[in-house]
Amino acid sequence: MSDATRETGLNLDIKFNEQGLVPAIVQDAATRQVLMVGWMNDAALRQTLATRQATFYSRSRNKMWVKGEESGHVQEVIEARVDCDQDVVLLLCKAHGPACHVGYQTCFYRAAAGADKLRLVEEKVFDPATVYKKK
Amino acid sequence: MSDATRETGLNLDIKFNEQGLVPAIVQDAATRQVLMVGWMNDAALRQTLATRQATFYSRSRNKMWVKGEESGHVQEVIEARVDCDQDVVLLLCKAHGPACHVGYQTCFYRAAAGADKLRLVEEKVFDPATVYKKK
Repeated sequence: MSDATRETGLNLDIKFNEQGLVPAIVQDAATRQVLMVGWMNDAALRQTLATRQATFYSRSRNKMWVKGEESGHVQEVIEARVDCDQDVVLLLCKAHGPACHVGYQTCFYRAAAGADKLRLVEEKVFDPATVYKKK
Repeated sequence: MSDATRETGLNLDIKFNEQGLVPAIVQDAATRQVLMVGWMNDAALRQTLATRQATFYSRSRNKMWVKGEESGHVQEVIEARVDCDQDVVLLLCKAHGPACHVGYQTCFYRAAAGADKLRLVEEKVFDPATVYKKK
C-alpha cells in the first residue's frame, strides 16, 4: 500500500519497522494521562483488537505479553487509533491499576531539568515488591 | 549506565535505538490530546531542550527539522518527560496550530473499526494545500 493511501484511506495497514514491530502509546481514556509505550508485533495488535486487553511484544523476552498478566493492572482498550502514516498506535484505555513497574501511575514520572538532569514530577502509588513476585 | 540506574536515577541518559534515535510523543499540555510522534537523535533532543521548540530528526530526509518551520505550527515545549527506561520522550507542548500535515489537529484521526478497517474520529481543521507549499 502506498504512503498516500495509508494516510487517507480507511484500511488498517500498519507500517511495522524492520523488526516487525510498531510502538503503541497507552493513554488513560478518562484522565488523558499518557501512561506508557509498549511495542507490538502483528499478533499482539490483533490480540489487542480482539480481546480489548492491551497486549505487547517484549523485545527483551522475545514473547507476547498481556499488560497486567502478573500485576493485575490490565488496560482495557476503549479505542485504538493509528497515526497518519500508520507507524504508531494509540490505545485509549481504562487502566485497572498503575502502569509503571517502578511504582508510578505513569512511566513518565520524571521531567528534564536543565540539560542533563531529571526531576520527579509524580508520586509513587505502590510498592513494586508487593505486586511483582521475585522469580 | 545500568538499566536500574536509568529507572531510578535523576540523570538524563536516553537509551537511543540502534539508529541513534528515540521516539518523542507530543501531547497538548492544555487539552492533553496526543498530537503526534516524531523521532529525535541526540542533537534534536538537545536543541529541543535548549530552544523549547519541538525539534525532530527526519528518517526519510536524514536531517533535523523544527516542527512548524514551514507551516508555522510550532510546538512550544512546556515540559519534557522521559519514561522509566528512558527510551521514550514525552513533550507537553503548547501547540501553535494543528499537528498533522494531512489537515487534522492530531495525527491520530482514525480509530480501528473491526479487524481491518478504520473510521474517522476527528474533523479536518485546515487544507494542507494552503499551508504547505508545493516543492
